[in-house]
Amino acid sequence: MDTAHRSKLYEQVAERIGDAIATGTLRPGERLPSVRELSTRERVSISTVLQAYVHLESMGLVETRPQSGHYVRRRERPLPAEPQVSSRPPTTASPVSVSALVARVYRSASDPRMVPLGAGIPAAELLPTRRLNRELALLAREAGELAVAYDMPPGCPELRRQLARRALDWGCTLGADDFITTCGASEALHLSLLAVARTGDTIAIESPAYYGTLRAIEALGLRALEIPCHPRHGMEIEALEAVLAKRRVAAVLIVPSFSNPVGSCMPEVNRQRLVTLLAQHDVPLIEDDLYGDLHFGAERPRPCKAFDTDGRVLLCGSFSKTLAPGYRVGWVAPGRYRERVELLKFAQTVATPTLPQLAIARFLQGGGYDRHLRTLRRRVAAQVERMREAIAEHFPQGTCATRPTGNALLWVELPPTVDALILHERALEAGISIAPGPIFSAQARRYSHHIRLNCGHPWSPRIEAAMATLGSLARSLA
Amino acid sequence: MDTAHRSKLYEQVAERIGDAIATGTLRPGERLPSVRELSTRERVSISTVLQAYVHLESMGLVETRPQSGHYVRRRERPLPAEPQVSSRPPTTASPVSVSALVARVYRSASDPRMVPLGAGIPAAELLPTRRLNRELALLAREAGELAVAYDMPPGCPELRRQLARRALDWGCTLGADDFITTCGASEALHLSLLAVARTGDTIAIESPAYYGTLRAIEALGLRALEIPCHPRHGMEIEALEAVLAKRRVAAVLIVPSFSNPVGSCMPEVNRQRLVTLLAQHDVPLIEDDLYGDLHFGAERPRPCKAFDTDGRVLLCGSFSKTLAPGYRVGWVAPGRYRERVELLKFAQTVATPTLPQLAIARFLQGGGYDRHLRTLRRRVAAQVERMREAIAEHFPQGTCATRPTGNALLWVELPPTVDALILHERALEAGISIAPGPIFSAQARRYSHHIRLNCGHPWSPRIEAAMATLGSLARSLA
Repeated sequence: MDTAHRSKLYEQVAERIGDAIATGTLRPGERLPSVRELSTRERVSISTVLQAYVHLESMGLVETRPQSGHYVRRRERPLPAEPQVSSRPPTTASPVSVSALVARVYRSASDPRMVPLGAGIPAAELLPTRRLNRELALLAREAGELAVAYDMPPGCPELRRQLARRALDWGCTLGADDFITTCGASEALHLSLLAVARTGDTIAIESPAYYGTLRAIEALGLRALEIPCHPRHGMEIEALEAVLAKRRVAAVLIVPSFSNPVGSCMPEVNRQRLVTLLAQHDVPLIEDDLYGDLHFGAERPRPCKAFDTDGRVLLCGSFSKTLAPGYRVGWVAPGRYRERVELLKFAQTVATPTLPQLAIARFLQGGGYDRHLRTLRRRVAAQVERMREAIAEHFPQGTCATRPTGNALLWVELPPTVDALILHERALEAGISIAPGPIFSAQARRYSHHIRLNCGHPWSPRIEAAMATLGSLARSLA
Repeated sequence: MDTAHRSKLYEQVAERIGDAIATGTLRPGERLPSVRELSTRERVSISTVLQAYVHLESMGLVETRPQSGHYVRRRERPLPAEPQVSSRPPTTASPVSVSALVARVYRSASDPRMVPLGAGIPAAELLPTRRLNRELALLAREAGELAVAYDMPPGCPELRRQLARRALDWGCTLGADDFITTCGASEALHLSLLAVARTGDTIAIESPAYYGTLRAIEALGLRALEIPCHPRHGMEIEALEAVLAKRRVAAVLIVPSFSNPVGSCMPEVNRQRLVTLLAQHDVPLIEDDLYGDLHFGAERPRPCKAFDTDGRVLLCGSFSKTLAPGYRVGWVAPGRYRERVELLKFAQTVATPTLPQLAIARFLQGGGYDRHLRTLRRRVAAQVERMREAIAEHFPQGTCATRPTGNALLWVELPPTVDALILHERALEAGISIAPGPIFSAQARRYSHHIRLNCGHPWSPRIEAAMATLGSLARSLA
């Protein structure tokens, strides 16, 4: 195997210590082996051990005490309370019109001068950018005419084979031919909506919901029906059941694993109940599994698709949050809607870009992806913890924040007097982008004192200062 | 400038002779300068002149007579008659359902074992594949984190600047900010349709029409109203006028320059009349200018957009037919619908792939595109001529074929007894893909004795044999 595909030595050492901390073998405040001890035990150089400790420190797992050594980081600050109560959205479906507000938020979010707490985009430095670009460069030279040719739907066979292989690990028995590649998960969701719904139809979604989903629903002239969601467990199956008993919905669209913005993870038993319920009512499920690979715990949650016996689940995903947003490579396993989705894909963008698919397929094939994910997950988990501490330290009393078990997002509930849109404006003036609550609902008046914070960037003095500023702005509004 | 961006010496020599033939300075049957004469006159080596003549021969412009020299190729065979009568589609709008048939045709068309006369895809050997891939490889190494980052709508500024610069040459005063980049022209058309129409609305289109357009209309649940078209001049303005006087259409969607499948080119005066007519009725025009760069004559036709005074024209294009289909880079200049199209782009695929856009922008910037286009146009024109000759030679009496002035497609009208779908099946059995007429109409029973032939591949014994086989199959069905 290409040596560049292996983690660096210090990363391997850091990984073993990180695992010991994660599993509780090493506990907060506990002293870690000295540099010399670890160097002997791990049979690596002193400088490798030092690098490993610096790495663990940057991840927020380890702290250095001068003249004393390295310790498992002790929590010095309290963490914010978790929100406990499920959302209570209105019980009627409504047309969606969040696009203009979202566009304004998004434009500021992609301004590089802003501290990037707005858009849910991972920091490029956390991604295997150099290795991926090298694969792409090699392929561009090797692939010749293939590189410029259309890669007709269902798309790159090498990539679909890799997806099928990974799906087995998620508990899904899917073959390469069950997948269609797309221009990101957004296109996968868009195609899935087009495949199962027509203008005016109602789609049941989470509340709060990802604004991209709301915009896709808006773009296609559909109606959104927001279902109550628990901050940890996601969509409430009983609430959905009550809705389905009363009215027809064209589809349910959810993010069961580490939802956006809340970060909830639907328990497996609920996933099973959901799929059974939808089978009873003959309703398709569009499952956005964009964040499934970003679990902090030991196991990747099994998608609802794993419990699907009659092909009613359209499972959507991409590599935008873990590898390369700008490559625009996503996928959908559309079950019984396969033929229709393939035709729609053809009509919408004809083909997915050839070379980016091939580069990602090679990266997966080389085995680099799983190693990368292990590091990425640990770093993101550490970033989320740091952000939660900063909220507890700086934000007004009564602020709650979610405690996600995956993904790089925090959903923050401020005291009801804090207007999130005003806070958003003030934060922009201070050079900080955040995502205000109202963009996460079809009704732009909801979640008026909530914000979503992106934790996709490594903790830094710049982010620390931004969190202090944000907290003081929020306090001044409370 | 990079030397690889310059045409080769022999290509420059061949270009000058090709121009002299095109303008009639050199006439069919006329003797060309001897190799030695030309070598002296052009101050190039004997071998360069020989290469130039081989090149001109492969383009079908020059023939070698043993012991005698090189001559402007004399037409030995008659050419087929042109169809003269405009199409007469039904006068009612109807839902579209061609997707299944199109999918079947397309699957066979992308089978590399087939002689590729079906899909309208240019041969990769006619494209500057190596140079583009090299740009991409360099960028993948240089661009670093930028390469994997989202390139948010409106998309790559460098590419949009190049588009604005080129638009000036087409008579359109458009700034970089008037463009939005897309995943190919297909996405541009899809977004444009979504921006101006809602489910159930009627779109006025050409007849026959590109099946991709029909599928987009089908995918969005719209209705198609086919307007009569002249084989040379495209959509009949009077016919459209009569329709608009009677009923509301949400938009007109046309390919004024070298339409697909007919290859018609709307005269400039008609383009002006069309834009004025649509302004009177307040109807937007979606202009598919995918083939504008592939004109055989000296001038690129000015798009309808050049006559647009109130921003009602959504001009769509891409580099898929002239540079790299698999890069998936297209664009739209949506006029007054800009904001809506940008929001829809965001909702549909979020962003266009970063690196392919940058690679194409650099290629345009380096000046290589115009030189490439000159060669490409001449080669395609020669291929189209060869195919027309082959039709006259092999196809049943009474067969008509269009005489396009741009693009690499021929629309062939066979005797009415020839069933194009049966011919399509027989051709597939013989290893030849063609596009049968019925896929070019919302009503799959129309154009039942028509076929479209792709001339995007250099003339070769394989294609010659395929045309002979196709002709004999058609004769057996006549």
